[in-house]
Amino acid sequence: MAQSQSTVDNGVNVEALLGAREALTETPEAAKFVWRASCTWKNGTHSHSSVKGYFGLGEEHNHKTEFSFDADHPEVFASEDKGATPVEYVLVGLASCLTAGVAAVAQHRGIQLRSVKATLEGGMDIQGILGIDSNVRNGFDGIKVTYDIDADASHEDIEALVAQSQKRSAVYDIITNPTNVTVEVK
Amino acid sequence: MAQSQSTVDNGVNVEALLGAREALTETPEAAKFVWRASCTWKNGTHSHSSVKGYFGLGEEHNHKTEFSFDADHPEVFASEDKGATPVEYVLVGLASCLTAGVAAVAQHRGIQLRSVKATLEGGMDIQGILGIDSNVRNGFDGIKVTYDIDADASHEDIEALVAQSQKRSAVYDIITNPTNVTVEVK
Repeated sequence: MAQSQSTVDNGVNVEALLGAREALTETPEAAKFVWRASCTWKNGTHSHSSVKGYFGLGEEHNHKTEFSFDADHPEVFASEDKGATPVEYVLVGLASCLTAGVAAVAQHRGIQLRSVKATLEGGMDIQGILGIDSNVRNGFDGIKVTYDIDADASHEDIEALVAQSQKRSAVYDIITNPTNVTVEVK
Repeated sequence: MAQSQSTVDNGVNVEALLGAREALTETPEAAKFVWRASCTWKNGTHSHSSVKGYFGLGEEHNHKTEFSFDADHPEVFASEDKGATPVEYVLVGLASCLTAGVAAVAQHRGIQLRSVKATLEGGMDIQGILGIDSNVRNGFDGIKVTYDIDADASHEDIEALVAQSQKRSAVYDIITNPTNVTVEVK
């Protein structure tokens, strides 16, 4: 706590987060969030998704703006490449989740960040999605994240920072552990 | 096959995909893809990710354009809401993956689609990410996907279409099964 009141400023309001943690410990019902997206098929493998409303702290909220995303398959899959591929969206989610965590943990630990860059690679044998070999999974066979961080801290402290971000990351959990997905047709 | 040569046109080149499946059965090495994203921290929980190059069919490729994405946390987390949250990116990935699959399978089965819309909801108890209760997971406690599909097919055939899309979906696999993620600091 003392450290977070220093002159270190990564732009994360740690006091507000610690306050929220205290408040939600008293009222755990308010900690239940629902995140949403909707997706409209355009043509071929091209779709348009949007993100606007979510539920949390007991009520509905809207993002300040509606966020819109085109997704598609690339030309090597005989598609038109009108957006990032769905699996690249997953990498963006993982990268941004871990990076936000790095900033928040750094602020809490009194570490001034100068720059943070993550590079992600996910291998995938497309024999899975093409149905060539049922022993090959559809998804990534693994993901490698490499951080390049310039901060006012030792390499050891930076590694500990990244490890703590992983430990609290929603998307890291979603990818490394199974989640139940129910798909229904109206 | 006969059906895919009918007048049904969902904009998916099924012949090319079937050709690729045949070619990759002969040369399985070419089926190894690597998808990438890079992420640069901006300030606070705000980051900027980009997607451009990928590897597959034995060589490097670039998307026709570089795709860029801002991610952030919302104002209720004392952030500036400059982009969708990381977990919403995961929902966009899932929605777009299943929707591309619906179009591809429909084309293969000779089903003309008129409209396809998916609505996704992922519940999350933020006691996990805030570190209030270590028994609460960080990620979604489950995801519900609801499809509203207008197509030239029975409700039963549409349900089978969606089920087949799930079976071949990369992102559905990534979310419902564990994937190894390695995080390193340079």
